[in-house]
Amino acid sequence: MTVSSDHPKANAQRTLISVDAMGGDQGPAIVVAGCSESAARNADISFVLHGPAETLEPLVAKRPELAGRCIVRDASGVVTMDDKPSNVLRNGKDTSMWSAIESVRTGEASVAVSCGNTGALMAISMIRLKKMPGVNRPAIAVLYPSTGPQGFNVMLDVGADVRADADDLLRFALMGKSYARNGMDIERPRIGLLNVGTEEHKGRTELKEAFELIRDAADESEYDFVGFVEGSDLSGDVADVIVTDGFTGNIAIKTGEGTATLIGNGLREAFQHSIWSRFTALLAYGSLGRVKKRFDPRRVNGGVFLGLNGTVVKSHGAADATGVSSAIKLAARLAESEFTNRLAARVATAPPVKEIEE
Amino acid sequence: MTVSSDHPKANAQRTLISVDAMGGDQGPAIVVAGCSESAARNADISFVLHGPAETLEPLVAKRPELAGRCIVRDASGVVTMDDKPSNVLRNGKDTSMWSAIESVRTGEASVAVSCGNTGALMAISMIRLKKMPGVNRPAIAVLYPSTGPQGFNVMLDVGADVRADADDLLRFALMGKSYARNGMDIERPRIGLLNVGTEEHKGRTELKEAFELIRDAADESEYDFVGFVEGSDLSGDVADVIVTDGFTGNIAIKTGEGTATLIGNGLREAFQHSIWSRFTALLAYGSLGRVKKRFDPRRVNGGVFLGLNGTVVKSHGAADATGVSSAIKLAARLAESEFTNRLAARVATAPPVKEIEE
Repeated sequence: MTVSSDHPKANAQRTLISVDAMGGDQGPAIVVAGCSESAARNADISFVLHGPAETLEPLVAKRPELAGRCIVRDASGVVTMDDKPSNVLRNGKDTSMWSAIESVRTGEASVAVSCGNTGALMAISMIRLKKMPGVNRPAIAVLYPSTGPQGFNVMLDVGADVRADADDLLRFALMGKSYARNGMDIERPRIGLLNVGTEEHKGRTELKEAFELIRDAADESEYDFVGFVEGSDLSGDVADVIVTDGFTGNIAIKTGEGTATLIGNGLREAFQHSIWSRFTALLAYGSLGRVKKRFDPRRVNGGVFLGLNGTVVKSHGAADATGVSSAIKLAARLAESEFTNRLAARVATAPPVKEIEE
Repeated sequence: MTVSSDHPKANAQRTLISVDAMGGDQGPAIVVAGCSESAARNADISFVLHGPAETLEPLVAKRPELAGRCIVRDASGVVTMDDKPSNVLRNGKDTSMWSAIESVRTGEASVAVSCGNTGALMAISMIRLKKMPGVNRPAIAVLYPSTGPQGFNVMLDVGADVRADADDLLRFALMGKSYARNGMDIERPRIGLLNVGTEEHKGRTELKEAFELIRDAADESEYDFVGFVEGSDLSGDVADVIVTDGFTGNIAIKTGEGTATLIGNGLREAFQHSIWSRFTALLAYGSLGRVKKRFDPRRVNGGVFLGLNGTVVKSHGAADATGVSSAIKLAARLAESEFTNRLAARVATAPPVKEIEE
């Protein structure tokens, strides 16, 4: 049996990552394969894997890369994609997702990764990890392909909450800045506030207020504020971090993903149009592959929950082993940079949060 | 001189289109070229062209297709892209844009087309044409490439106003349905309401209220309500008409456009990567051309202002002659279907508008 009974944290060199093995569309075998892929690439990480032991132990035993670097934490319950978050909070204490977050809460692991139900994962994370001092609303940040220097921009919030007032948007800016610095190595990120135009007089009232708050905090918080940006700047080189509320952000990324899929399918159809076009597709294999790789969603798999006492990475439900592995890579990177501590320090220095009137 | 002094409306067979020749990024020559292209393709349309006569008359004279089918209405002022709408309302009575809308207001032309400043065009249209009875907020509708049966879905509002309450969203559904029927030949359009998830409990309060209003009006107004849709459905085959507020809609289409541009540039770079890839690009010319044509924004150039006493088509500021011509084609189609009258009749039968509390 390759499942080690030694606690992997005993190896002080290694970053322990808590992984919810259940709840992804493709089942636990893919999640274990993703852990194995990560372990092979990165000698500095180890895992605590949550789910039914009788399912996970044989899967782990098949992966020599995980020998001595992975413990299984038995949890019999599974959160499905259809489970309502409120229901999971009431009845989900035996689930792999709950157990995975618990490892971060107790300090055993520094970061958790799950492919499961986003709403339930956010709800458990909120209740168990609790909000960081100075944060009213946590946010989910994603990387979006762009022409920027890193090839990606950060956008937040993309769906932790459908609302955000001016104060929340300021915290998002601060959290996004920390993420860009620690997760993407951008020393002084450029921050933009998403709006329907770049002129200062445009948009909703809370945006004009947020504009002033984010502008005034720029110097002290060491970012550049580029002002209002538009939807097209999400994939552009104007800002490294795009700040918006979770409603708008969610619709923007899903619209972008849908459009990319539409074009990808259009390309596939065009190159299957005739024998000649199939032939040219073969010849153009390298070029098409380069484009595909650049926009491969698996390369940037992972929404990060920001503003909680602990880092949680949400991998796409449909992620394959490469996708899971890239979510783990992101988690490891954030863990190693002590992201949560730095973020907490940063947010705490921001102006005090106003009372939310709701 | 080819500029006819006969009023083109004298020819009862022809639909008269009012065209603002100024304000596009590419200047009036491109607009006149677009009119000429349209005239060559469609014998049933004629034009009243607004702008400085000394600029336009020589341009028109060069186009034999426009002989006897185009009058020039002298207007010396030009609305620039930077002009504030409020300023144009105060000082813009001598502009080509104002004059173009005036032709629709007096009933001379049945539809106006402009490549100019969207905010100013909407402001003039609102003030001069006025809102249709039963409409609180007009909307701008666009066509978005999709896997749907027509190859495009309608989305509205994409930026007439940053706000919309539940009542407004119901009107948008009714206006969108009329547009899909008259502009796209969809007998019984499927209508979806944009949200962050498809479950009924998701999203903001006004969306849940709008959900019920749109659902309850479906039978009488002869559309199918498919419920909440997500950003990815904008390019999908779930709904023909996507209803949202102008803030969200504007950000969604700009995100989609930006993503399409990013991928297009990525393809171009990939095929210029080496001598071999340049060679394969030549061989794959047909396939790449098919994709490019399918997603060519010029093919669906034209946002339509809905909910006013008269139809106004906003062509993209950067449109070339083909783009202008396709905006004119759309305008002609809407004019011929007596779209405005049908829409007014439809919106008037909807439940009475509640007082807006603002």
